[in-house]
Amino acid sequence: MASLGLNRYGKARVRVMKVVRYDDFHEMKEWSVKVLLQGNFETCFTQGENHNILPTDTIKNTVYSLARDSTSSTLEDFATELVAYLLANNPQVSQAAVEIEEKNWRQLLIDGEPHATTYAIAGPEVKTTEVLGERGSALKISSGIDGLVILKTTKSAFTGYIKDKFTTLPESTDRIFATRATITWEYDTLPSDYERARASAIESLLKTFAEHDSLSVQHTLYDMGVALLAAVPEAQRVKLTMPNLHCLPVDLSRFGQNNPNQIFVPTDEPHGYIEAVIER
Amino acid sequence: MASLGLNRYGKARVRVMKVVRYDDFHEMKEWSVKVLLQGNFETCFTQGENHNILPTDTIKNTVYSLARDSTSSTLEDFATELVAYLLANNPQVSQAAVEIEEKNWRQLLIDGEPHATTYAIAGPEVKTTEVLGERGSALKISSGIDGLVILKTTKSAFTGYIKDKFTTLPESTDRIFATRATITWEYDTLPSDYERARASAIESLLKTFAEHDSLSVQHTLYDMGVALLAAVPEAQRVKLTMPNLHCLPVDLSRFGQNNPNQIFVPTDEPHGYIEAVIER
Amino acid sequence: MASLGLNRYGKARVRVMKVVRYDDFHEMKEWSVKVLLQGNFETCFTQGENHNILPTDTIKNTVYSLARDSTSSTLEDFATELVAYLLANNPQVSQAAVEIEEKNWRQLLIDGEPHATTYAIAGPEVKTTEVLGERGSALKISSGIDGLVILKTTKSAFTGYIKDKFTTLPESTDRIFATRATITWEYDTLPSDYERARASAIESLLKTFAEHDSLSVQHTLYDMGVALLAAVPEAQRVKLTMPNLHCLPVDLSRFGQNNPNQIFVPTDEPHGYIEAVIER
Amino acid sequence: MASLGLNRYGKARVRVMKVVRYDDFHEMKEWSVKVLLQGNFETCFTQGENHNILPTDTIKNTVYSLARDSTSSTLEDFATELVAYLLANNPQVSQAAVEIEEKNWRQLLIDGEPHATTYAIAGPEVKTTEVLGERGSALKISSGIDGLVILKTTKSAFTGYIKDKFTTLPESTDRIFATRATITWEYDTLPSDYERARASAIESLLKTFAEHDSLSVQHTLYDMGVALLAAVPEAQRVKLTMPNLHCLPVDLSRFGQNNPNQIFVPTDEPHGYIEAVIER
Repeated sequence: MASLGLNRYGKARVRVMKVVRYDDFHEMKEWSVKVLLQGNFETCFTQGENHNILPTDTIKNTVYSLARDSTSSTLEDFATELVAYLLANNPQVSQAAVEIEEKNWRQLLIDGEPHATTYAIAGPEVKTTEVLGERGSALKISSGIDGLVILKTTKSAFTGYIKDKFTTLPESTDRIFATRATITWEYDTLPSDYERARASAIESLLKTFAEHDSLSVQHTLYDMGVALLAAVPEAQRVKLTMPNLHCLPVDLSRFGQNNPNQIFVPTDEPHGYIEAVIER
Repeated sequence: MASLGLNRYGKARVRVMKVVRYDDFHEMKEWSVKVLLQGNFETCFTQGENHNILPTDTIKNTVYSLARDSTSSTLEDFATELVAYLLANNPQVSQAAVEIEEKNWRQLLIDGEPHATTYAIAGPEVKTTEVLGERGSALKISSGIDGLVILKTTKSAFTGYIKDKFTTLPESTDRIFATRATITWEYDTLPSDYERARASAIESLLKTFAEHDSLSVQHTLYDMGVALLAAVPEAQRVKLTMPNLHCLPVDLSRFGQNNPNQIFVPTDEPHGYIEAVIER
Repeated sequence: MASLGLNRYGKARVRVMKVVRYDDFHEMKEWSVKVLLQGNFETCFTQGENHNILPTDTIKNTVYSLARDSTSSTLEDFATELVAYLLANNPQVSQAAVEIEEKNWRQLLIDGEPHATTYAIAGPEVKTTEVLGERGSALKISSGIDGLVILKTTKSAFTGYIKDKFTTLPESTDRIFATRATITWEYDTLPSDYERARASAIESLLKTFAEHDSLSVQHTLYDMGVALLAAVPEAQRVKLTMPNLHCLPVDLSRFGQNNPNQIFVPTDEPHGYIEAVIER
Repeated sequence: MASLGLNRYGKARVRVMKVVRYDDFHEMKEWSVKVLLQGNFETCFTQGENHNILPTDTIKNTVYSLARDSTSSTLEDFATELVAYLLANNPQVSQAAVEIEEKNWRQLLIDGEPHATTYAIAGPEVKTTEVLGERGSALKISSGIDGLVILKTTKSAFTGYIKDKFTTLPESTDRIFATRATITWEYDTLPSDYERARASAIESLLKTFAEHDSLSVQHTLYDMGVALLAAVPEAQRVKLTMPNLHCLPVDLSRFGQNNPNQIFVPTDEPHGYIEAVIER
């Protein structure tokens, strides 16, 4: 009566650090890898037959071993290698998806210069990628950034919205705009250099965020997406998720003080949630 | 050149606690509500026009106010009320989705009896629901449980899997099976009592987990799904996500000791990841 | 010019799970162990000499190996064993402290009966202990509970406090009282059974919390401490830390509704913080 | 029989953001404030008398109001103001302690220049301070940094340690050294500029960490402390807590590969724990 529907399995949070030891500096990257497989696994679920199962422990080892031999310096290239390996060596697998997050390690500045072998975490944001390989189809590759915490202290308004019996929010022509953005763009054609493409993407996002005369989170989000598509010609589509992390002006009139947009309470919950896809 | 694709917005993490004060005891529930709207919001994104925007602050107030008047005692019923209200009062909205999590508060046992007005958190799992209302279509309602941390010390094996050059995992006929399950079922027809349906669902899941002769996570996951569909006739489909939180036997032979399946290192990362839909 | 002051080192978050396999059920415990050593380590810091250093990796292995041979069923007894071993085998160590947290695993109820080999996490609270051994002195042993999330919906008031120009809080004769308590008691003489002592301690804390006519968090905290000292004759002193996790009544008058103590917003920050030692 | 021992209370996680709007840029700071009071509160605990209690809600309002009028630009100066206000206005309080954390917001670089009104979180570390005021005594002021995540890929060894029957760690002359440091220094005399003192402190810590030929975590920690005392003449004492976040070399020989110090598994638990005070 019951039957198996869509299913997938794999290994998550496979952490791997790679240090490439050049003569004059060390390149260090820390990745967290997630691998998900789809394929012919029906009887594993229904009968407990494991003969088609590549154990998730082996998937973990595959990540470590391929990392050793790989010459990829970007997470996108390494994810592509992993997908290719898994499909080539596992006929029972019809689709392999690899997601990688790269932590934001940067070389420490010592006496104003990047130190050759010392790093610090330079922000909460992580670089992300997802590479999806389906047998017989072209790879689908996306890049992104997750956890980008940014804030502007002006050029953000919110007025002219619907008023109903539950409205208590006052209109504002000058409010704080803070978010923790997750942004992912899909490639239609592949860029020659993923890191350069990502740098262009992020530069366009930040510049738009900083300079925008925002009439709403939606308004700024849209223009950020448009800017990214202009900056990264290979990107076909970008998805932006930008929660509105409210900074509430404190009512100081109760204490005989004014508050000319100076004192705020930053909050985590509840938060606004805005999400959209911008595409060519 | 660029255009707006799929988009939605709303308010997340709206926490609300409701205390119903009966003569002989207080019923207390704590919910975290997420509301997401779709509709005619194109010019908000592209032009910064807000005349169609119901502010997320107002959405929050709507949650509080409806909670006051509501007679719903289940999260499913309250989410349904919210969806109905939002669609009825916002012609610009074509689709409203409400997700609610309910914390696992239980009345404290004092001298062996549930105390009338005192509660404790009884486990990390939360009750969940999602109600999706699209204008002109029937509601889609699902219920679930998230963060259910369970473990069995025996009746779990994993053998007969693919061996390749990256295999280092030894086969095991008696291992620890630990997971943090997320389980969601969709209703085809609506149950007369969501809480009774959920209780049947969870009882079937736990009983199957406890008694199953597991040949793999997949194997047990499938039988748990089958059991749920048998226990909840109104459920059409169930999705189970069950990470494998590995408990690794410690190699004590290095210290001249044996380890007859007694001493383990529980780990959080990496973890196996298994997910499937079981449907009628 | 500079000199080394107080210092200590060791290993934290050593997770170990022990399964004792009786004929008719399995006893499973999961501990997270922290070991901190003090002693003659001056030249390690100042000269980089490691000949007196027991590596933290070895400390970890010691935990695993002793767990195998130990017959202790309580965290207090196992911490005592670890302290004794470390002092006996490391003359360079003058003081060893061991802290253990035990997760709140409980046997699942299946058909109303505890299942012999299946467990679930039954609450966020953990059992805790700290055993401190200083060469030539008696052991200092404390037990506790951390992360106990409890709430009462009535019998909690807060009135008669100082009013000044920053006062905005209205007095309340019936408010929600929610906390996430951390409670630790020190033993003067050792109980014959740590688990029975802990059970008495927690029963006294919960009963007092539930039944107390609270005039403030301080008031209830004190009576909880007094009750614990009465329930556990071997305890000399108890420290209670009880943040006040405010549940704020929502002002519904803006929406034409009353709020007879029914609808609240639970909050995590800011929170009140109350801490005291109660001693004989 | 029971009596009240040491006790304190106050408000934690009071978040406040201050924006100072200069003509050509905005200075924005986000603080999380904790206030703890000691004093004459005996009967509050024992009798439920609140006439000596300054509510924690009022403490929160005091933080907001003083932030409005304050001209302090450093967390140390603002904490000092708060302590002074609380002691001056609350005769029942004998001791006030204020701890503040400042998030690591930095002006975004747009086209290579700091943007006047836009910020991003630039790292997980927070600036910290604690100011302790006891009636009749001089203030005790400390500054610090918490959550500084740093890593060096070379110049870190660990050899010559004790070997016993539980030793499995191989000696290493070239390992990864990663930590999440918490560092606090106490001022004997007050610096003229806390921010300049902090900048000198951190520069000395990072430079020593980067350039040190480390023979152990202890060895580097000590030299970092010595460097800080040299860089900040007003500091009398510095406490450094530096967990050893192990990056384990992967054994690739099982897959027919070597691993010349290239591929590591970064781990969070268990971790080494090293803590020391360095003083003049």
